[in-house]
Amino acid sequence: MSTLDESYLVGLIGDGVIPSLTPPMHEAEAAAHRLLYLYRPIDLLEIKRPGTDVGELLRAGRDLGFNAFNITHPCKQLVLEHLDVIDPDAQRLGAVNTVVIRDGAFHGYNTDRTGFGRGLSNGLPEAKLDRVVQIGVGGAGSAVAHALLSLGVRHLVLVDLDPARAAERAEALSEFFPDRTIEGRSTADVPAELAAADGLVHATPVGMHQHPGLPIDPELLEPRHWVADVVYRPVETELIKAARARGCATLDGGHMAVGQAVDAFRLITGLEPDAARMRAHFLDMLERGL
Amino acid sequence: MSTLDESYLVGLIGDGVIPSLTPPMHEAEAAAHRLLYLYRPIDLLEIKRPGTDVGELLRAGRDLGFNAFNITHPCKQLVLEHLDVIDPDAQRLGAVNTVVIRDGAFHGYNTDRTGFGRGLSNGLPEAKLDRVVQIGVGGAGSAVAHALLSLGVRHLVLVDLDPARAAERAEALSEFFPDRTIEGRSTADVPAELAAADGLVHATPVGMHQHPGLPIDPELLEPRHWVADVVYRPVETELIKAARARGCATLDGGHMAVGQAVDAFRLITGLEPDAARMRAHFLDMLERGL
Repeated sequence: MSTLDESYLVGLIGDGVIPSLTPPMHEAEAAAHRLLYLYRPIDLLEIKRPGTDVGELLRAGRDLGFNAFNITHPCKQLVLEHLDVIDPDAQRLGAVNTVVIRDGAFHGYNTDRTGFGRGLSNGLPEAKLDRVVQIGVGGAGSAVAHALLSLGVRHLVLVDLDPARAAERAEALSEFFPDRTIEGRSTADVPAELAAADGLVHATPVGMHQHPGLPIDPELLEPRHWVADVVYRPVETELIKAARARGCATLDGGHMAVGQAVDAFRLITGLEPDAARMRAHFLDMLERGL
Repeated sequence: MSTLDESYLVGLIGDGVIPSLTPPMHEAEAAAHRLLYLYRPIDLLEIKRPGTDVGELLRAGRDLGFNAFNITHPCKQLVLEHLDVIDPDAQRLGAVNTVVIRDGAFHGYNTDRTGFGRGLSNGLPEAKLDRVVQIGVGGAGSAVAHALLSLGVRHLVLVDLDPARAAERAEALSEFFPDRTIEGRSTADVPAELAAADGLVHATPVGMHQHPGLPIDPELLEPRHWVADVVYRPVETELIKAARARGCATLDGGHMAVGQAVDAFRLITGLEPDAARMRAHFLDMLERGL
């Protein structure tokens, strides 16, 4: 039994979102809180609509009783112009993955950023954050870089297959974090940069089921390095396995995947989710091949 | 916990539907079946959209993951042109109150008609259906008239404040039921018509909280008459009370209100709802002033 006040309707807008584990993560956590909570994947490929329709979908959703949306590729930037209020950190990042509808107004947030930050703080509380190498500066990479700098990383080296993109991203970040050293480098520089770094964050698709492999030579890792991955299918990537074998502290990609959902659930409901329960459910779903 | 297959998202499109008891009726019955089922009222007055937007709302709802809609005033006729498949009885009635989305196609039904018919069969199984007087031939009245004729009423007298509308409706119905006698009459004819009738069906707003009163002089009722009302706020209308006091068998408006929801729930889920449980919940909500 329910009333309007305790029920939630949420959607995930993006390309290829049908297999996403975010909807069942939210629904299971909501069930534990005894909420009537329905979370629909809205797959743009399935409904044959372009990412530029995101504003129209938001407005239709508002009319049809939706409370919130998660937004993913290719709409995280496209959604910005349709929002009434944007969280300052999401604004600086230039990407929104969570839209909460309050009194008919669209409020935008980025829980990829806060989710990664929370995962790193909780999962590797001892990690030294002086000097970090990050590989990959795409959408997830941008959120991760912002999170690292917000957590206090003083020297951030961004590496990308496209060195110009890495340099461009480093310059953009330097504007928001003028007291840090942020540099773009090419993959050829990774050995030298890792030799001087405390930790490594990996934010490319390498290591996913569809893109097996290692993004770096694991011989470069030493026990003093911590290693974080954003890939979570599988949660035990080749990078995470190799790092652990070499004595590194590791943070698997599940932390960011769960962290973004934890923070979105809190924004949507105002309730404190049980992050450990959500992670256990997430890992269980992965194990069951969902 | 849920999967896509066992969860349902349903909406009610119409003017002023926020206080409707249909959404909580569906949600409570679904909870008893252990379904994740969210039913949103979509109030056109609230979202400031005209009834002619019903097709656009249906299509947006399909894209956003809705499974079905109930449709009410002023959209029951407007919706017809947007449907892919229309149930023949709903087509004859020219009004649809239930749209189920199957493989992306809109299938239209009218459960006002079937709901009233089921209520009459179950609630007054002994009712003699030879000659019936019906007062009111608006939207609900049309569904009721179709239901009465489908149940076997041989002589139907339609009465309306506007006798021309009653005559017009009688003529239209005669085309679909050529073997029956269907006549339009004015309110002045009610005494004579009731004297010859087995039962009376009332389908105007008279007797609602906002329109208190009696639609006919209760002195016209005799114990041999059965009396059915479609008004359900309150469920004990002045007409129902007066009829019972005069020894008539009665059928309150809750039967149609619950019957349309019972039949819609079955169409949407493919499951058999517990009609008695839904009626008990409905009456409980009315008692609690919802």
